[in-house]
Amino acid sequence: MNPTDKYQNRVSQANTLLCIGLDSDIRQIPRHYRDDPFPQFAFNRVIIDETRDYVCAYKMNSALYEARGDRGMAELKMTVSYLQERHPNIVTICDAKRADIGSTNVGYVEAIYDWLGFDAVTLHPYLGKQALQPFLQRGDKYSIVVCRTANPGARELQDLQVDGVPLWLHIAERVAQEWNSRGNCMLVVGAAEPSELRDVRQRVGDMPLFIPGVGAQAGSVQQVVEAGINTQRNGLIINASRSIIFAEEPWRAARKLRDEINQYRIRGDNNG
Amino acid sequence: MNPTDKYQNRVSQANTLLCIGLDSDIRQIPRHYRDDPFPQFAFNRVIIDETRDYVCAYKMNSALYEARGDRGMAELKMTVSYLQERHPNIVTICDAKRADIGSTNVGYVEAIYDWLGFDAVTLHPYLGKQALQPFLQRGDKYSIVVCRTANPGARELQDLQVDGVPLWLHIAERVAQEWNSRGNCMLVVGAAEPSELRDVRQRVGDMPLFIPGVGAQAGSVQQVVEAGINTQRNGLIINASRSIIFAEEPWRAARKLRDEINQYRIRGDNNG
Repeated sequence: MNPTDKYQNRVSQANTLLCIGLDSDIRQIPRHYRDDPFPQFAFNRVIIDETRDYVCAYKMNSALYEARGDRGMAELKMTVSYLQERHPNIVTICDAKRADIGSTNVGYVEAIYDWLGFDAVTLHPYLGKQALQPFLQRGDKYSIVVCRTANPGARELQDLQVDGVPLWLHIAERVAQEWNSRGNCMLVVGAAEPSELRDVRQRVGDMPLFIPGVGAQAGSVQQVVEAGINTQRNGLIINASRSIIFAEEPWRAARKLRDEINQYRIRGDNNG
Repeated sequence: MNPTDKYQNRVSQANTLLCIGLDSDIRQIPRHYRDDPFPQFAFNRVIIDETRDYVCAYKMNSALYEARGDRGMAELKMTVSYLQERHPNIVTICDAKRADIGSTNVGYVEAIYDWLGFDAVTLHPYLGKQALQPFLQRGDKYSIVVCRTANPGARELQDLQVDGVPLWLHIAERVAQEWNSRGNCMLVVGAAEPSELRDVRQRVGDMPLFIPGVGAQAGSVQQVVEAGINTQRNGLIINASRSIIFAEEPWRAARKLRDEINQYRIRGDNNG
């Protein structure tokens, strides 16, 4: 299946732009899971069973599994396999921020798309389109290029001016115009400033944008939805991680955020 | 031990700037290793036993191990452990090109520095110094920041002009001036053009530079050594991978390249 179709189909069927980040840090999951032979997977399975109706995607942060070595990698794979078997319509995103040159990327493609079985991976742009071809050529998978991040030091390099345009916006344009010939690209836009999200949207057409966080991390839900929504009233994957998976009732936190996103998404539709 | 000391001590003791890349792609290693229960490790062990006297460092390309999932990760760890036990003076480099934001990097630090046990890791610069603090703060380890690559499409973003200076050179200056407060930074400089390597050297003082390849990939050994050597007649880690590990006699190929590097390194010393 074309990955763009998978995202669009899921958004249509489940009416949600919410992504839950299964950032299941072994030190933060409830203590009783740590006695399980597969603690991260056991925790993820419970979260998935509770929240699956409210999401278009699950995102897993590779580092938090790699930190446990081969055991963590095995549980990352178990989680993706569980989703493939039980909920094959939900998009799976590996937040691994990879990128190398030449045939090395073939190794990452095999690891993330094939062995782990993810639908999508996040990628660093610095080595250029040519280097990322092993990812971009996979028309059955998403390449999600890091464009803008919201960490305190993000501006150090991302805001450098290139022909009067900040580097991050230059990258957004290049991905939209040059890298996306298979229609399988997305961008990571950490929306500390809603105006920046609006700038990206104006330049990339209806391309889906991955928003790493809302709330404390990245402005209000309303601002993100209104600035980032595309002409189809979708094109966003809005992630929340710890505020949901470590909530007292994860399903309730997920439903609440899904509804809040939809409120602005649909209200905007009526206004427009 | 301070990692800079580890590199300097090894260079002094073994008189070599050569790094061998254990890019032991499972499809390329000799067929008889594939019957071994730990094929990548079995191959690496033989290469290490043959070539250890000629290197200052071994580099492993994480992707080529991740491609085999948890089994590959386990064999990557076995290889590093073997080096730690038998040859603790040789620097171990994980060519993983990582970088994320916030606490996520803590996961990579734990995976690469602690669980796998590497001395060094390659990093993407795009998220800025602040994001990379979990790596940079580890004064017992090297942070090797990707500055310049030699792939055909490298110029797409790396050559963008920032205040009249190409982005890659701007990054070299920032790392040398701002990121290297613990003296544990290095740069990846893929030297397609020796003049670019010279430009980097002029801006970063005696900081060690990791050169991903010589020969077909990146100009002659002579050009690389003469352009990149520092005032101490070292400060280079010159990598060769397949040309050595898949040679008929790896030890002979390693010794030959070590000697060729030293020829220009020492000749320049006499001239200067």
